[in-house]
Amino acid sequence: MSSKRLGRQTVQLENPPSIIGAYSSVGVKEGKGPLNAYFDTIYDDDMLGEKTWEKAESRLVCDTVDGAMQNASIVSDEVQYIFSGDLLNQCVGSAFGIKKFNIPYFGLFGACSTMGESLSLAAMTIDGGFADCCIAATESHFCSAERQFRFPLEYGGVRTPTSQWTVTGSGAVVLSSKHIKGTPRITHITTGRIVDMGIVDANNMGAAMAPSAADTIYQHFEDTGRKTEYYDKIVTGDLGSVGASILIDLLKDKNIDIAKNYNDCGMMIYDDEKQDTKAGGSGCGCSGSVFCGYYYKQLIKKHFNKILFIPTGALMSTTTAQQGDPIMGISHCVAIEI
Amino acid sequence: MSSKRLGRQTVQLENPPSIIGAYSSVGVKEGKGPLNAYFDTIYDDDMLGEKTWEKAESRLVCDTVDGAMQNASIVSDEVQYIFSGDLLNQCVGSAFGIKKFNIPYFGLFGACSTMGESLSLAAMTIDGGFADCCIAATESHFCSAERQFRFPLEYGGVRTPTSQWTVTGSGAVVLSSKHIKGTPRITHITTGRIVDMGIVDANNMGAAMAPSAADTIYQHFEDTGRKTEYYDKIVTGDLGSVGASILIDLLKDKNIDIAKNYNDCGMMIYDDEKQDTKAGGSGCGCSGSVFCGYYYKQLIKKHFNKILFIPTGALMSTTTAQQGDPIMGISHCVAIEI
Repeated sequence: MSSKRLGRQTVQLENPPSIIGAYSSVGVKEGKGPLNAYFDTIYDDDMLGEKTWEKAESRLVCDTVDGAMQNASIVSDEVQYIFSGDLLNQCVGSAFGIKKFNIPYFGLFGACSTMGESLSLAAMTIDGGFADCCIAATESHFCSAERQFRFPLEYGGVRTPTSQWTVTGSGAVVLSSKHIKGTPRITHITTGRIVDMGIVDANNMGAAMAPSAADTIYQHFEDTGRKTEYYDKIVTGDLGSVGASILIDLLKDKNIDIAKNYNDCGMMIYDDEKQDTKAGGSGCGCSGSVFCGYYYKQLIKKHFNKILFIPTGALMSTTTAQQGDPIMGISHCVAIEI
Repeated sequence: MSSKRLGRQTVQLENPPSIIGAYSSVGVKEGKGPLNAYFDTIYDDDMLGEKTWEKAESRLVCDTVDGAMQNASIVSDEVQYIFSGDLLNQCVGSAFGIKKFNIPYFGLFGACSTMGESLSLAAMTIDGGFADCCIAATESHFCSAERQFRFPLEYGGVRTPTSQWTVTGSGAVVLSSKHIKGTPRITHITTGRIVDMGIVDANNMGAAMAPSAADTIYQHFEDTGRKTEYYDKIVTGDLGSVGASILIDLLKDKNIDIAKNYNDCGMMIYDDEKQDTKAGGSGCGCSGSVFCGYYYKQLIKKHFNKILFIPTGALMSTTTAQQGDPIMGISHCVAIEI
């Protein structure tokens, strides 16, 4: 058994990579939310000067990766791999967005857990000795997601109380093998399994994802032997208010109490009541932008020293939904310390 | 600079993982092609007993992963990670297919280069000390791909001479940190960049992918200092006859002559003239099934001792095609020796 392995699903990094730069970009609505002081770029036009929503989404991740590299004071030639993906069919948001950087590219599909998947694989690639510098990124756009997954925007469909609002936003992180004092490091990775609880309501993604978040978080504490108090914050991706309360209950049933130090990026990014976002934010860009915008800065300032970050994803497509298949969940857990 | 790195895009594995099992499954048409003696399972019904093409595709990868584990004499509890992806929107073919194994899952999107991406990341994960055993897999299905990307099958659209036929097939590989005598090992990985030559003809994927194959293959020889003669076979994924001849010419322009020991899985899987498959096979399952069915067995028998395997992918979606965007290419290169 490899010395880096802890239990069934966790690895402990021997030379924890440093997060030497991070950048967050969001759209108009996100910029009017409670975290508006933390985002690095708030666009005043959700088209970002492009002709289509999909091209706007690509521009979003392109600008965000550029921002992360500037924040880390590096250029693209110094980056050995970029890990990225998104919700669009064939992950075209990321592919078209990052092509100009000319960096060897591993395309990912982890639905809204992508920020966790990209951070995990980028950190393992560095700790494994394959790279000195990697970028992990993701993005989503409200309008391209609505067009693809739901209804034409012009239709103005009524949203159910459990529905969530896809974040127009992106997050990008630069990871380095060099430890630079005062930068947070990725120490442990607990990789998620696919969890299928038979949920079929496409307007209740939180309920579909919560069991997978519970599964990965439970396994993280099992594998590491840590207690929940070890972390200053335990932060899921985009369960929203419905999924978050399910998660707390599911873990309580397993004698794990996260209520005291728990939060969810989907519950933080909007003022659901004032902004009419129902159960909260969702989309790859939700955990991406909130981690890079808010949590990364809190770690740098040592307001938090240890966080457990668990982006959550729903595995489905319009075809599987139309064929009556369940919405499965997957959640990837990344431990970060400064 | 990490000791494992060779040049801009290549890593040399320190403890090359062994391919301790592989399995290939294909549909009816592929089973009537020139490689029919090599595939492990040939289905006599492309529905595989399922109700929809998409569910048939999931069944295909499920059965193939099962076959690979049996071939390697392992059970799913011994596998620490599975890397897989496919062409379907939100990669649902793989996700629904592999969920029953309950293995920590990294979902990938590399279009038809996925077998190269999954082999690369699985090999790096083992060589990096994070796992003792990983599975790399992919699949595609003619009918689900036609429905999603082209026309309803019932429409019976005329195919252009440069078009390719999406393979109904799957390949899965079990990689291990333990070296078992007589099994091939992955020694080098050259990860592709996105190459955009402005090709917009969705019926000529070979031309769209060939420049990216040329880019990665050129870089592999630059980084390793090897000559083409080093390999018994240099094998691309699914360029087909049109893309393959473009690749040979592009590399000739850079003083690299691969013509003598080159082949393409897309040119091998069908008898294009008799089977009316125009320019050859394509799809994630093309290189997946041909590698696992044919090349793996040739390595085991030492008919070939060294191969360079370069699955090729086209990055696009129906949305980007409708918006006039180019079809970009990406190709991942894996060196395998016995």
